[in-house]
Amino acid sequence: MKRHIYLEDIPLNEAWAAFSAALEANGLWRPLPTATIPLTEANGRIAAAAIWAKISSPHYHASAMDGFAVRAQDTVGATETNPLYLALIPNDAATEDTTINPVAQAVNTGHPLPAWANAVVMIEHTQPATLPDGRPAIAIRASLPPWQHVRPMGEDMVATELALPANHKLRPVDLGALAGSGHAAVSVYRRPRVAIIPTGSELVAAETAVHTLQPGQIIEYNSLVLAAQVQNWGGLPTRWPIVPDELDAIKTAVIAAAQTHDLILLNAGSSAGSEDYSAHVVQQLGQLLVHGVAVRPGHPVILGMIERRVPHSALPAPHSSCPIIGVPGYPVSAALTGEIFVEPLLAKWQGQPPHTPATLTATLTRKLNSPTGDDDFVRVAVGKVGDNILATPISRGAGVITSLVRADGIVRIPRFSEGADAGTAVTVHLYRTPQEIAQTIVAIGSHDLTLDLLAQFLAAQGHGLRLMSANVGSLGGLVALRRGEAHLAGSHLLDAATGVYNDSYIHRYLPQQPVTLITLVGREQGWIVPPGNPKGLQGWADAANPDVRLVNRQRGAGTRVLLDYELERLGIMPAQVNGYEREEYTHLAVAAAVAAGAADAGLGIRAAARALDLDFAPLAHEQYDLVIPQAYVDGDLLRPLLDLLHDDAFRTAVAAMPGYDITPMGRTRTITHPTN
Amino acid sequence: MKRHIYLEDIPLNEAWAAFSAALEANGLWRPLPTATIPLTEANGRIAAAAIWAKISSPHYHASAMDGFAVRAQDTVGATETNPLYLALIPNDAATEDTTINPVAQAVNTGHPLPAWANAVVMIEHTQPATLPDGRPAIAIRASLPPWQHVRPMGEDMVATELALPANHKLRPVDLGALAGSGHAAVSVYRRPRVAIIPTGSELVAAETAVHTLQPGQIIEYNSLVLAAQVQNWGGLPTRWPIVPDELDAIKTAVIAAAQTHDLILLNAGSSAGSEDYSAHVVQQLGQLLVHGVAVRPGHPVILGMIERRVPHSALPAPHSSCPIIGVPGYPVSAALTGEIFVEPLLAKWQGQPPHTPATLTATLTRKLNSPTGDDDFVRVAVGKVGDNILATPISRGAGVITSLVRADGIVRIPRFSEGADAGTAVTVHLYRTPQEIAQTIVAIGSHDLTLDLLAQFLAAQGHGLRLMSANVGSLGGLVALRRGEAHLAGSHLLDAATGVYNDSYIHRYLPQQPVTLITLVGREQGWIVPPGNPKGLQGWADAANPDVRLVNRQRGAGTRVLLDYELERLGIMPAQVNGYEREEYTHLAVAAAVAAGAADAGLGIRAAARALDLDFAPLAHEQYDLVIPQAYVDGDLLRPLLDLLHDDAFRTAVAAMPGYDITPMGRTRTITHPTN
Repeated sequence: MKRHIYLEDIPLNEAWAAFSAALEANGLWRPLPTATIPLTEANGRIAAAAIWAKISSPHYHASAMDGFAVRAQDTVGATETNPLYLALIPNDAATEDTTINPVAQAVNTGHPLPAWANAVVMIEHTQPATLPDGRPAIAIRASLPPWQHVRPMGEDMVATELALPANHKLRPVDLGALAGSGHAAVSVYRRPRVAIIPTGSELVAAETAVHTLQPGQIIEYNSLVLAAQVQNWGGLPTRWPIVPDELDAIKTAVIAAAQTHDLILLNAGSSAGSEDYSAHVVQQLGQLLVHGVAVRPGHPVILGMIERRVPHSALPAPHSSCPIIGVPGYPVSAALTGEIFVEPLLAKWQGQPPHTPATLTATLTRKLNSPTGDDDFVRVAVGKVGDNILATPISRGAGVITSLVRADGIVRIPRFSEGADAGTAVTVHLYRTPQEIAQTIVAIGSHDLTLDLLAQFLAAQGHGLRLMSANVGSLGGLVALRRGEAHLAGSHLLDAATGVYNDSYIHRYLPQQPVTLITLVGREQGWIVPPGNPKGLQGWADAANPDVRLVNRQRGAGTRVLLDYELERLGIMPAQVNGYEREEYTHLAVAAAVAAGAADAGLGIRAAARALDLDFAPLAHEQYDLVIPQAYVDGDLLRPLLDLLHDDAFRTAVAAMPGYDITPMGRTRTITHPTN
Repeated sequence: MKRHIYLEDIPLNEAWAAFSAALEANGLWRPLPTATIPLTEANGRIAAAAIWAKISSPHYHASAMDGFAVRAQDTVGATETNPLYLALIPNDAATEDTTINPVAQAVNTGHPLPAWANAVVMIEHTQPATLPDGRPAIAIRASLPPWQHVRPMGEDMVATELALPANHKLRPVDLGALAGSGHAAVSVYRRPRVAIIPTGSELVAAETAVHTLQPGQIIEYNSLVLAAQVQNWGGLPTRWPIVPDELDAIKTAVIAAAQTHDLILLNAGSSAGSEDYSAHVVQQLGQLLVHGVAVRPGHPVILGMIERRVPHSALPAPHSSCPIIGVPGYPVSAALTGEIFVEPLLAKWQGQPPHTPATLTATLTRKLNSPTGDDDFVRVAVGKVGDNILATPISRGAGVITSLVRADGIVRIPRFSEGADAGTAVTVHLYRTPQEIAQTIVAIGSHDLTLDLLAQFLAAQGHGLRLMSANVGSLGGLVALRRGEAHLAGSHLLDAATGVYNDSYIHRYLPQQPVTLITLVGREQGWIVPPGNPKGLQGWADAANPDVRLVNRQRGAGTRVLLDYELERLGIMPAQVNGYEREEYTHLAVAAAVAAGAADAGLGIRAAARALDLDFAPLAHEQYDLVIPQAYVDGDLLRPLLDLLHDDAFRTAVAAMPGYDITPMGRTRTITHPTN
């Protein structure tokens, strides 16, 4: 029977305290047991104990050069003009014949120094010679200090010295130091075994053929993400097959997983809905410690302990309890739950402090509103534009995994804060290195598929340059340029008075800034309509047909400007347009709305219609420009991107997209502002 | 037949140019062929082509909440005081009965929105109700905007959108985005296969039992280090068995490796000595491009191409040539050759730019002399002491792998530069993160084994704190404190006039600085002698015995101060001491010299004698203090370290070392300087 459950709002630090106390009580808040493994498998593992040198390295006095072993005192007095002669003794002479001093013996690099010798003369600094009695010898023309060109025993490490401390992550050179000090194996912490159990009757495996997908079916990929996270954090993940939303089936899976794993991630069903079983499963099989943590995203997190039925021999330490984390179902919540709860636990089990991401101070480009009750983890894009490091919130839902894919870092807004204003300095916990941030070209403005292609071609060159684009519409792009928030803006703003694209808007919005406009592409705008154009749209006037449900672009988009311009020209009021207020932010989103039947038509580009197998009724040709402040046109960062506009492969790829005209690509004009 | 070879001095950039030109000519200066692999194996791999969304995500309009699907327009006018009632229609009703408007239908999170609905009202915002005709209904008390609590189709990704660009390294969240957009597999670059062939008749495998080692035998571990490097850089290493120094045997191995690998690392034999065969092998089997690069360490590098005999079917692209790198034998040279030549090549083959380490600007603590002809890669230890970031060169030979283990980064001194003065700002290419540097406690001064134990206990706590110690002797430590280069200094400097340790030296060397002295340990000093004390040493006077070859500590070491004090007391002149000028920097190095028979005795601590199974003739008890500037005593960084002095486990471990007295451990005295 399901008992009554409800979701709490436990602050993050209290949730962690409850979890770690329960782990402590079960002897699980400490590193895992150790295993001894050969050095050949030890790269990246964590040393479980201090490692002391077994032997010295080198373990004998070694020649550091190709040359001759000598006694330094025999060389005193040798000069350029007064060479000294040293008799050569054979290499197999075990001991020195003291009657034939002074002597020398050939040695190569790494050879042991004979016991009687204390220096090596390099072969280049000797000449072959013969003594008066006919014995072979060498001539030397400079004296040597003792221990010249000798690697004394223990130069690198002396036996019993500390080679590496415990809890050290073994790097390639560390393996060399261990081998050199006499170790062939090393004691490391056992890897944490983590069971990942996806639950949900609506789920289908990511391996399923996508063409069989039905509405309501959801591709299960949280287990892929969690498994890869566990792997990156040193654990061994096991992905369980999908379990349907049935209490007993989930219990059976959890009981089995607990026998052979150190940790269970149960995903999802962690909320308090009618089909959310996770809390009941944990209550019935063990102890529910926390249900609901005041973090966003990721609120419905469960922390608990499962009692093991049979101590399993495969687990070196048969603890009676197995920790379990109920992971929320939304993909962003799931991935952040991994970072917040799973990573620190795996680190602890490997003797490591929790991962501390590198941080960067950046200026917030937009106001951030945050619920005061939660620790808020805000995904941000970070760009360095000129001397400014800027963080732009990626403000989309917990279901949007691409918000994490595109995130350069996280800004943490603590509980009891209501957020931060635009212009505030915030700390970004980085997913990328500061170098990667510095190699990012920030494009803010109108969306066009050609920008995706440009990003793609840029990445393919392998220079490490990255094009990040934010779609805020043409006007939004000009505003971003004015604020110094972007390197370039895509813009297609028609000036109704002149019929010229962009120039007059730039005079108005960027009156102080010298900019260059480079045409990216010419393209067709028209009605994106369902296949066969069932409502027979042809011209601008169809916008006023009450029977046609339109989907619109957001205010400030060039496409919206175009529509408004044409509506005004025809005397159509926005209130006459069915769907005028339904806004989308990209051409593809408009096409998607039409494809889903949510709208009968939307204004957009031909390629977007073609992408979703829709029809297209052309209305206008327009020009899409890149607006670039002069400093970046002249600088190095954008050079490879601008060169691509003249690259045959890139031009061919753009021309292959329907509705695109590459004839104007690369045309350049510089806007000079009249001096006021 | 071996042909005449000699080592050149080709500048690094020219060597790279020659190598990449030859690779280019063979079609090898580009990413490797691709392979399609399931997402479950794709974590960390590099996407070989742009990945475009196959389906939209979500692929239908989905409810974002548990609640009821409604039409937004039906909710207009609902208020707290004037609820509206919506008739419930069953979930299996495929289409809406328009005669019973307004209606609602139960939906859970993720469920598809019925085609007639355009919003979802949360279950918490409804009450169950019954219509006058008896039908079940819900009451709502607020109107909804259209698309409230709906995840529109394509909210995350729209089909045909760019999901990820080519050359992107796949992270956990990326796998989610790929699965969500309809991909079950991904095209990645094949991993580079790298053969690592160790050569040398003097080599024994690292797996060999160390007690069988003979002088002249060298433990082969470069192949371990190179294999782990290759692994970290995305390649698949093959470690070849050790090949003896025989031309034909090496040729046979190289020919076999070339058939099945993308790159061969031949180690060593890359110099120009009588047993160096690598250049001959490359000449005879292909093309020797470069032999000798002007870098230090790592000069005798070979770059070449091997001609493949039979194109091998296991290699997707059966190029006729296989690049080969002759890697120098000294371990530091070998590891740096990996970083300088192997990493950029593997990166290129994976569509990546070469690794760019994070950099830090630091102040050089010592003068750096650099050969003008070479690009000099200087290993440095980096510490943050107060506000100063300091780089200290680790100036040891190419055979000292621990110099790389201890290095926090590399300072590159370019060709034509003679080095840099102490106090110069230099750029450090980091092996560690700046956070790790900030969590490093820098100890400079006298060496004691207790410091190794302290480092070990500190690391075992898992806070991420690290103790780095540099052994420069007691006086050197005080000088480092004066310069602000260390957090603490170990010191045992006897004041002959007072018999008190350290205080008078601190007055002299740190007259302006408030410091606290905390006694780490008391310990015995005495003669370290071979087992059985064959020369019968007993007292200080034995230092003057011309038959006893001593090994001494360096000037400024507390042990040296002690010896000098006693020699002066007895009226013995340094010139009377056999071996006075032979200096070592640690107790263990002194013991190693005695163990190797290079000296008959040396002054040092009992634990060092015991470590190498030597005998010990005690002479004196002394006190070893930690000297700590007051600011660090009061600060947070050193707290865990100072707490260890009162930790039972640590005290027990120190007491277990022979010759140590923990009674005074933790005794604290603050030095107040008389105001001048």
